Amino acid sequence: MNIVCNKQKLLDGINIALKAIPGKTTMAILECMVIEVKEGIIKLISNDLEIGIETIIEGDIKEEGSVAVEAKLFFEIIRKMSLDEINIQVNENYVMNISDGKSKFNIAAKSSEEFPFLPPIVKNESISISQFTLREIIRQTIFSISDNENTKIMTGELFEIKENVLKVVSLDGHRISIRNVQLKNSYPDVSMIIPGKTLMEISKILNGGLEDEVIMYFTDKHVLFEFENTIFLSRLIEGEYYKIEKMISSDYETKILVNKKEMLESIDRATLLIKESEKKPVIIDITDESMTFSINSQTGSMNEQIEVTKEGKDILIGFNPRFLIDALRVIDDEEIKIYMINPKAPCFIKNDDESYIYLILPVNFKV
Amino acid sequence: MNIVCNKQKLLDGINIALKAIPGKTTMAILECMVIEVKEGIIKLISNDLEIGIETIIEGDIKEEGSVAVEAKLFFEIIRKMSLDEINIQVNENYVMNISDGKSKFNIAAKSSEEFPFLPPIVKNESISISQFTLREIIRQTIFSISDNENTKIMTGELFEIKENVLKVVSLDGHRISIRNVQLKNSYPDVSMIIPGKTLMEISKILNGGLEDEVIMYFTDKHVLFEFENTIFLSRLIEGEYYKIEKMISSDYETKILVNKKEMLESIDRATLLIKESEKKPVIIDITDESMTFSINSQTGSMNEQIEVTKEGKDILIGFNPRFLIDALRVIDDEEIKIYMINPKAPCFIKNDDESYIYLILPVNFKV
Repeated sequence: MNIVCNKQKLLDGINIALKAIPGKTTMAILECMVIEVKEGIIKLISNDLEIGIETIIEGDIKEEGSVAVEAKLFFEIIRKMSLDEINIQVNENYVMNISDGKSKFNIAAKSSEEFPFLPPIVKNESISISQFTLREIIRQTIFSISDNENTKIMTGELFEIKENVLKVVSLDGHRISIRNVQLKNSYPDVSMIIPGKTLMEISKILNGGLEDEVIMYFTDKHVLFEFENTIFLSRLIEGEYYKIEKMISSDYETKILVNKKEMLESIDRATLLIKESEKKPVIIDITDESMTFSINSQTGSMNEQIEVTKEGKDILIGFNPRFLIDALRVIDDEEIKIYMINPKAPCFIKNDDESYIYLILPVNFKV
Repeated sequence: MNIVCNKQKLLDGINIALKAIPGKTTMAILECMVIEVKEGIIKLISNDLEIGIETIIEGDIKEEGSVAVEAKLFFEIIRKMSLDEINIQVNENYVMNISDGKSKFNIAAKSSEEFPFLPPIVKNESISISQFTLREIIRQTIFSISDNENTKIMTGELFEIKENVLKVVSLDGHRISIRNVQLKNSYPDVSMIIPGKTLMEISKILNGGLEDEVIMYFTDKHVLFEFENTIFLSRLIEGEYYKIEKMISSDYETKILVNKKEMLESIDRATLLIKESEKKPVIIDITDESMTFSINSQTGSMNEQIEVTKEGKDILIGFNPRFLIDALRVIDDEEIKIYMINPKAPCFIKNDDESYIYLILPVNFKV
């Protein structure tokens, strides 16, 4: 194998492929990325057995072939090269020579024979969505997945298409995050559970353009994201997702309109007094036109008041401040609406067209 | 006690005092900073028993008094306040009320009675130096102290004044770093060993101005740095420093002139192939007009050549690449001069007026 690549383009490709290189593994071959030069195309391939990535890079092909090289070392060497044109040559003993004309590296590479190449995916059902939107809906829901592997389904997110609306849901038993996105085209209904880790890794490589599309292909077991020169394949989580419709209510006894930033900062300050081991709630007292936050912990006490517009009853209700902070941080609206029924029932933070709904369970507290 | 302070000015003071708050300690009082309001002055005081800091902050004094408050919590609360005018009031039970008019915090503070206040220092001998220069000479030498507490003297740096030159020296048994600074005024000769930790912490709070002076006062046991509104007191390391004069030679058999950045980048690339557990040297082959770096490790091999101007003999010599990198990084000159005698004798990187001298021992290697 022998190719000549531009340093920056090569690095961009390596950075994408690195997302499917596992941090720790007992299978040394998974720490490698494959450089596959075939039919006039140079591909970088990585696979941690949950996620697999193939990305095409530009370059001059002098000789085709395929090789597996330790991914992090390869990345570091390319990154530190001083000149722009990088020649990569692999001999019959899998010694890889990397040179920019000035620095010459020889490292031991491997045959790619043992590498778990990505399975072929039949591209049937698919949707198209902008990279920006996909990255945003992940950011706006990923915080409320669970990391408890015993409830595997909660470690992923529901992606459901119904009547040309993409609904993304995550929940951890204390809260539910929902985002609804109107799709531009018509699609058949479909539903799948995508692992949280997949969503976190793909967010890192989506460049975020509003004009740049991602095509998502679904099969029973896999989802394939295709964008620019890259395909990103992930296993799905098997099983049926929770029926969330019956948990969502539109009844309320108290409705408030509040400045999001002010509320977020008040709660953020309140958390200063809570040590991690304590599970102290922030207590919110809503009366006419005001909302008072207070907290009482071993460290001390705090209270502060902000203005709100209220409809309905007064209420005194306690929350895990973390849950409120997580939801408020990902809402872009300046003013938000919060709906409550009583101090035992879930509260809802949502907008009028329900493009977002955050359900949070309150916690008990002693007055 | 009752004071009203501007948020930012208070934070600036707290940030300085935090440098003498220990990370871990069994003495809870050391995790506190004292706010002492006395004779019309507001002071923040901290002391980890190696370093003690007093810094004066501006503010309106409503009532004098003194209190010890958990430093990191106090910092976090002030930092997150939303308004600029902060009122701090402590009652007779040492409950501290912190308020900006909107947020009201009550936290448990302590009497400052048990706090180890800084000992009084007789201000006799002193030198004056710019904050910029002090910060620079620390940065340019601190990397070659030892962290081995068994050779306590090596964990500090020699500060020696002789004939109005300040010489700063650090060494770790494999290398010596020396910086010489011509002082503007006349001073008596003096010599002391300042702990490395002291130097690292003070570097962090020196604002770096060329026009802003630091006065250093010396006693047998202490050094006191005085600048702006702050005094920074540190114990000295007791004992006599190594006689370095006899280790410094001006003989050489090979002298080269080389571009610093090019040499640094070449060595940096070579280290990619060395795992931490390996102690592989970078081998430098100097012949007429060129310097070739090569490395051979379990991971692979690398070599590259750069141009140099050489006087004297050819030489093949091996170094711990880390030691070369550390020295090259802190030299500001574009072109540097390196002097070598033979592959067993120390090499010297120094400039003509010897404002810096870096001595590095070579290592043995197999060809």
